[in-house]
Amino acid sequence: GQVASNPGNGHIDPARLFLSIPSTGHLRKHLEYYASGTHVAGINRTQAEHTRDYFAEHGIDAKIVEYYPWLNYPVGQRVALFNESTQRVLFEAGLKEDVVPGDPSSEDPNNLPAFHGYSADGNVTGKLVYANYGTVDDFKALKAAGVNIKDKIVLIRYGNVLRGLKVYGAELHGARGVLIYSDPADDGYARGKVYPAGPWRPDSSLERGSVSLIQIYPGDPLTPGHPATKDAPRLDPRDAKNLNTIPSLPLSYRDAEPLLRALVGFGKNASDISEDWVGGLASKGVQYWTGPSALSVNLMNRVEFKTTPIQNVIGRIKGWEDSERTVIIGNHRDAWCAGASDPSSGSAVLLELVRAFGELAKLGWRPRRTVVLASWDAEEYGLVGSTEWVEENVDWIRADVISYINVDAAVMGPDFYASASPIFKDLLYEVTKQVPYPGSANQTVYDAWLSHPASELVGGEPSPGNGSAHKYTSGIINGRAPLVRSLGSGSDFTAFMAHAGVSSLHLGFGTMLGTYHSNYDSLKWMTTFVDPDFELHRAMARICGLLVIHLADDPVLGLNPVSYAKSVGDYIHEAERQMARQTPARNDSTRAATSKSNAFRKLHRLRAAQRQLMSNARLVEQSKHRLRVVYGEDCQMAGRRRRMNCRKLRKSINDRASKLERHFIDPEGLPGREWYKHTLVGPGRWLGYDAQVFPALLEAAEDHKWNQLRQREKRAAELIYDAAWFLREV
Amino acid sequence: GQVASNPGNGHIDPARLFLSIPSTGHLRKHLEYYASGTHVAGINRTQAEHTRDYFAEHGIDAKIVEYYPWLNYPVGQRVALFNESTQRVLFEAGLKEDVVPGDPSSEDPNNLPAFHGYSADGNVTGKLVYANYGTVDDFKALKAAGVNIKDKIVLIRYGNVLRGLKVYGAELHGARGVLIYSDPADDGYARGKVYPAGPWRPDSSLERGSVSLIQIYPGDPLTPGHPATKDAPRLDPRDAKNLNTIPSLPLSYRDAEPLLRALVGFGKNASDISEDWVGGLASKGVQYWTGPSALSVNLMNRVEFKTTPIQNVIGRIKGWEDSERTVIIGNHRDAWCAGASDPSSGSAVLLELVRAFGELAKLGWRPRRTVVLASWDAEEYGLVGSTEWVEENVDWIRADVISYINVDAAVMGPDFYASASPIFKDLLYEVTKQVPYPGSANQTVYDAWLSHPASELVGGEPSPGNGSAHKYTSGIINGRAPLVRSLGSGSDFTAFMAHAGVSSLHLGFGTMLGTYHSNYDSLKWMTTFVDPDFELHRAMARICGLLVIHLADDPVLGLNPVSYAKSVGDYIHEAERQMARQTPARNDSTRAATSKSNAFRKLHRLRAAQRQLMSNARLVEQSKHRLRVVYGEDCQMAGRRRRMNCRKLRKSINDRASKLERHFIDPEGLPGREWYKHTLVGPGRWLGYDAQVFPALLEAAEDHKWNQLRQREKRAAELIYDAAWFLREV
Ligand SMILES: [Ca+2]
Ligand SMILES: [Ca+2]
Ligand SMILES: [Zn+2]
Ligand SMILES: [Zn+2]
Ligand SMILES: [Zn+2]
Ligand SMILES: [Zn+2]
Repeated sequence: GQVASNPGNGHIDPARLFLSIPSTGHLRKHLEYYASGTHVAGINRTQAEHTRDYFAEHGIDAKIVEYYPWLNYPVGQRVALFNESTQRVLFEAGLKEDVVPGDPSSEDPNNLPAFHGYSADGNVTGKLVYANYGTVDDFKALKAAGVNIKDKIVLIRYGNVLRGLKVYGAELHGARGVLIYSDPADDGYARGKVYPAGPWRPDSSLERGSVSLIQIYPGDPLTPGHPATKDAPRLDPRDAKNLNTIPSLPLSYRDAEPLLRALVGFGKNASDISEDWVGGLASKGVQYWTGPSALSVNLMNRVEFKTTPIQNVIGRIKGWEDSERTVIIGNHRDAWCAGASDPSSGSAVLLELVRAFGELAKLGWRPRRTVVLASWDAEEYGLVGSTEWVEENVDWIRADVISYINVDAAVMGPDFYASASPIFKDLLYEVTKQVPYPGSANQTVYDAWLSHPASELVGGEPSPGNGSAHKYTSGIINGRAPLVRSLGSGSDFTAFMAHAGVSSLHLGFGTMLGTYHSNYDSLKWMTTFVDPDFELHRAMARICGLLVIHLADDPVLGLNPVSYAKSVGDYIHEAERQMARQTPARNDSTRAATSKSNAFRKLHRLRAAQRQLMSNARLVEQSKHRLRVVYGEDCQMAGRRRRMNCRKLRKSINDRASKLERHFIDPEGLPGREWYKHTLVGPGRWLGYDAQVFPALLEAAEDHKWNQLRQREKRAAELIYDAAWFLREV
Repeated sequence: GQVASNPGNGHIDPARLFLSIPSTGHLRKHLEYYASGTHVAGINRTQAEHTRDYFAEHGIDAKIVEYYPWLNYPVGQRVALFNESTQRVLFEAGLKEDVVPGDPSSEDPNNLPAFHGYSADGNVTGKLVYANYGTVDDFKALKAAGVNIKDKIVLIRYGNVLRGLKVYGAELHGARGVLIYSDPADDGYARGKVYPAGPWRPDSSLERGSVSLIQIYPGDPLTPGHPATKDAPRLDPRDAKNLNTIPSLPLSYRDAEPLLRALVGFGKNASDISEDWVGGLASKGVQYWTGPSALSVNLMNRVEFKTTPIQNVIGRIKGWEDSERTVIIGNHRDAWCAGASDPSSGSAVLLELVRAFGELAKLGWRPRRTVVLASWDAEEYGLVGSTEWVEENVDWIRADVISYINVDAAVMGPDFYASASPIFKDLLYEVTKQVPYPGSANQTVYDAWLSHPASELVGGEPSPGNGSAHKYTSGIINGRAPLVRSLGSGSDFTAFMAHAGVSSLHLGFGTMLGTYHSNYDSLKWMTTFVDPDFELHRAMARICGLLVIHLADDPVLGLNPVSYAKSVGDYIHEAERQMARQTPARNDSTRAATSKSNAFRKLHRLRAAQRQLMSNARLVEQSKHRLRVVYGEDCQMAGRRRRMNCRKLRKSINDRASKLERHFIDPEGLPGREWYKHTLVGPGRWLGYDAQVFPALLEAAEDHKWNQLRQREKRAAELIYDAAWFLREV
C-alpha cells in the first residue's frame, strides 16, 4: 500500500517490529544452556542467577525472590516381586533408564532415580492389584468386580487424571502403596517408534512427577494461602491436606511387565470390565488381569523432606502510561531431568523475549503498562514458586494485574494448543494469524491450529492419556475457530486464574509426549524429532511476544467480554449436560424426587444472569466501537474536552475488559478446597489438571445434594449479576 | 541501562531502528543496476521508470515529472595538429578511452565520445596557447607575459575552477576554441597508480562534463527562472546567457602531450610565470610553454541541440502532523558514462533509503513532516532537472520546504565531506557521531571526518585541482570540529539554497577523483579501489537516513540559528580579508582614496546586524531549552493549557530555525545574475562551483566600485536585521 495513505500517528508498531527479532540461533543457545543438566527445584541456584543476569544484561530490572517450601528428595527406592511364603524374590525392578549412546542427557550422573515429588516416605508390602488409569470410575469398576484394594499395592497406568489423584484414590480405598507405570499404549511403542529410533517412550523410561494434590491447593503444602517466607507460620506436615500418605513410585513398562504377568489368572480379566482396561503390552502377549496377585510386592520409597529455598526470577519493565497496570508472562525453570521440552523450551522462549524486549528498549520502546517476566521455580513439585509469589502479592495482583500468560513446555511437538480465559479468544486468534507456521509457505499458526490441533493435554502440562480427559472442554469449541480450552490446573497459571482471578492463558506446541518427565526429554530428542531448526521455538517466541506487546501496549485492550459472556452460556449448557447424568434414578421416582429433578435439570437463575452479562458485555464492545469511530484509539484528536472524554472512556473500557475475571472470584472459595476461588471454572476435584465448569454446583449434583446445588446456583448467579453490573459502568 | 529508567514515552525511536536497515547487499544490487550502462540525460527513460517503480513497490507515492530543456549531444569531433603551410597533419587526437580488459563499462558501445555538455557547435582552427588552469589570474598572467590568445585554440588543464569558466575566460579574450585536458599532476600518475593498476586517471582517460555557466544561472538555458514545461516560453538560444559560444572538447593527457610538445620553445616557458604552471608531464620530459605555437590546431565539435524531455522521479511520504512542512532529499540519476560513483553511488543510497522507509512504514512509521525523495535528471548538463523543478514549485518550496539534502557521488573515496548551510552544523555532527566509520572498530564517521577530511572538492561535485579552491571556506572551520564547507554550486542543492532560500546540505565520501566523468568510473573501479564491501555506501545511507528522519520527525528541529549567526560573523571576517586585498594601491593615496579605503576596510554595518542576529538566535536556543525543561519536547504533559502552550512554542521555534535561511534571500538577486538570490553566499562569479561570501559586496570591491559596495553592505545589513527580527518572534 501507499505510505501516504497509511493511517495512524506515525509511530512504529512495536508488534510488527518485534516479529523480526526472535532468532532461532539465540533460541538454540538458550535451550542448550537450560537443557545442559538436571535442575531440580531447590538444588539449582546457578540457573536462577544466570537467568537474572541475562535479564539485567538486556536492561530489565531483575531480582531473585526466594521462598522456603517443604520439598522432598529421593534417598532410596525398591520395587520387588516375591513369594511371601518362600521369601524368594522373583523380580527386582530396575528403576533406571537406559543410557542412549549419543545422548549425553541419558548418562548424566546427576539424573534423578524413579521418584514422585511429594510422595510419602514408606516401605510397604502387599498383594498387587491393577486399577487401569486409577480414575474414580476405575476404582468403582474394581469394586463392582469384587476386587478389594485394601492393603494392596496398586499398579496404575499413567494418563487421564493427575498422578496425585491416582494415589489419593488408592489411599481412600485403603491401599498401602501405588506404582504408576507408563503403558506403551499411551505413549510408547503403540504410538510409534521409540527413542532413540523415534520420539516415543522406550521400555526403560520412567515418568517422574509430583503426586501432590494440587486440586486441593497447589504450592507449599505447609503454607496454604500464605507465602512460604523464611519465618512464615507453617502447618504440621501431618496436617497438610494436599499430601498423600502412602508411598508411590513411577515404573517403566519394562519393569511393569513382570508385575502384570504376575496378575494373570487372578481376579478378573480386565477385558471383562472393559476393553479400555487393556493396555499396550497385550501385543506382547501380556494379559491384563485385576488381581489381587498371589505373589507380593515390596515398594520402598525412602525420601527426605526438608524446608529448602527455591528461587523465582522476577523481571520488570515499567510502563510509561498506566504503569500500575501489569501484564505477567511466566514459565517454570525447574525440571525433573534435562527437561529440554518441559520446561526448557519455554525458558528459552522467555529468554528470547527478554532479549527482544531489550532490543526494543534500545530503540526507545517501553510498553504503556508494566510487564513482569517471571521464571518460576519448583513448578514440578506442585506449582510452588508461582503459588507462593501470588500468595505473597495477592492484594497488588488483584488490584493491578490484568493478564497472566503461562508458558511451560513451549515446544513438545508440532501442534499448537491454548487454554485460556474466554476473554482472550479474539486476541489469541489475531496473534496466531500474525505468525507463520514453521515449514509452511503460507500457513499461519492459526491455520495449523485449526486444521491440526494438539489432541493430548491434561489441563496444563501435557500428559499421556486418551481423549476422555477433554470431555468438559466442548463448551468453548467454536465450529469455525480453533479450540481454546478452559483452564484447569497443572501449570503456573493456577494461582493467577483460580486464586487471584487474573485472566490467564496457557499455550504451546505439543503432542509428542513420549519422553515427558524422563531422561530422554533431552536436547538430542528435541533436535532430532521435534524442532531441529528451532522454528517452533521461534513461532512460540513470536506468539508470546505479540501477546505481551498487545496486552501491555495496545491503547484499547483486545479483551472481549462478549466472548466471555458467550462462554458462560456454554459453561451453563455443559453443567446442565453433566447434571442430567446425575438425575435421580427412575426407581426413585417419587413426586418429591421428580420435582427436585426438574428443579436442577435447568439452571434458570444462571441462564438469566448470563443473559444480563451478555447484554452488558455488548455495551462494552459498543463503547469500544464508539471510541474508535468517534475519537480514534489514540485519543490524540484536537480539542481538550474530546481528548479528556476519550481517555476516560478508554480507561473505563480497559478496566471492564481486564477486570471482569475478578468478579467471578468467590471469596469463600470452593467447598472443601477454599484456596480455589473461581466460581466458573477450576480443576475437577477428581481430574486434577482438567477444567471443570461450575465446580461447586456440579460437586453438589454428583453428591446428590439438591438443596446445596440450589444455594450454589444462587450464589454463582449473584456473582454473574455483579459482573454484569460492573460491565455496565462503562 | 535499565529499561525501567529509560525516559521517553515508550515509542520506538525510528532513527535508532533505521540504523539497522540499510544493507550492503541491497546497496550492491542498486549500484549494479544503475552502473550497468551509460545513462545520459534525455536518453534513458527506463532508469526513471525503474526508479519510480522501486519507490512504488516500497509503498512510496511516486511519479515521473518531465521537463523539456534544450540539450545537446555529440555528433562528431576532431582535434588535430597540423602545419598550416604544408597542410600536413602531424597528430590526430584519439579522443577515445582505452578498453580495460575485465571492465565491461570500458567497452560499452554506447559510451559517449569526448564531449562537453552545452559546448557550442563549431569547427575552428588556430595557433595553440597553453593557459594553465584557465583562471582569471592565469589569463592575467598570460597577458602580462605578452601572450595574446585572440583567435587561438587554448589548451587548459582541468582543475581549480569550473570548466565552463575556463571556456568563458578564453572566449572573453577572443579565443576560437578550448581544449581542456586532464593533467597527470592533478589526477593521474603523479597521484598514484593509474587504472586498472590503481584508482588514478590513465593516459587515455577523458573527463567529460558540462561547460554551461551555472554561476550565471543553472538549468535549462532557454528558461531562466521559469520551468521548462512543454509549452513554456523560451529564449532564442543566442540570448541564453549561460552558454559559451566557442567550441570546446576534453582531452586525455595522452592526446594533450603532442600539443604541449608543439608549444615547446614558443612564447614563454611556463615555469618563468610560476612553477604552478608546470604540470605532471614534466616528469616525462615535456616542457610547458605558453605558445602561441607555430603549428595549428583544428578543433571540430559537431553537436546537435534539441529540446528533449528529461525525467525527474519524485516520491512523497506524507507527514502525519505538520504535513505541509517538507524535507527533501535528492540525487541526480543521469551520468556521462556508467557513473558508478557519480552519481550511481548516490542513486543506490537513495534507493536504499526508499527501501528502509518502506520497511519503517510497514512497521507503522510515518514522519511528522512530509518527506520528498527526488531522483533528478540532467544534473550533468547544468543541474537541469532540479532547477526546473524548483522553478516550477518555488512558491510552495519557499513556503514549506524546511531542508534540502543533496547526495550526488555518495562514494568516491574514503573521506567524508559536507557542505551546508551553517544551520545544519550541530545536526551533522550529531548524526555522523551515530554512524560507525567502515573498517574501524570504534571510530565514527565524525571521528574520521575530523582526523581525515576530504581535501579535494570544488563546491558540489568533486573536481581535480589543488587546494587553492578552498581559500574561501576557512570562515566555517571550527578548530575542534570537522570542516563544514559553504555551499557554492555544482550540484542539485543550488536552486534550493541559492534561488529558493532553502537551508541545504550536500555530503559524501570523496577524494579518489581519478576516474571522474570517465568510462572508468565503473563498478569494477568502485569494487576494486573504493568500496569493495559497500560499507561506505552503507555509512552514507545511514547518515542520509538519519538526517531525513531527524529533520522530518524530531519534535523540535535540531537546526541551530546560533551556528548560523556565528557563521555570518565568520563570513564578514572573510569578506573584510578579501576586501583588504582590493585596497586602492599606495600610489593612489589621495585623501579621497584613503577615506574610501577606510570606509570599506571594515563592514561596521554588517557587524552590527550580525550582533543583533546572534543575540536573537540565542533567544531561540533559550526557548528550545525552556521547552525541553518546562514541557518536554513531546508536549504530552498533563493540562490542556500547558499542552497548548508547548505546541505553540514548539511550532514557533521550528519555524524560526527552519525558515531563517529564507530571510537571506534578496528578491532582486545578485548583480548581473539575478537568478541567484542568496545574499550571504553563492558560487563565485569566477569560481563556478566554489562558494563566495557576500558575493555582491565583494564583486563591487573587486571592481573597485566603492559607492556600490556601501549600498550593497547597507542592503545586506537590512536583510540580516530582518532575519534577526524574525528570530525574535518566538
Ligand atoms: Ca503457600
Ligand atoms: Ca528554467
Ligand atoms: Zn512443566
Ligand atoms: Zn513438568
Ligand atoms: Zn554528479
Ligand atoms: Zn558529474
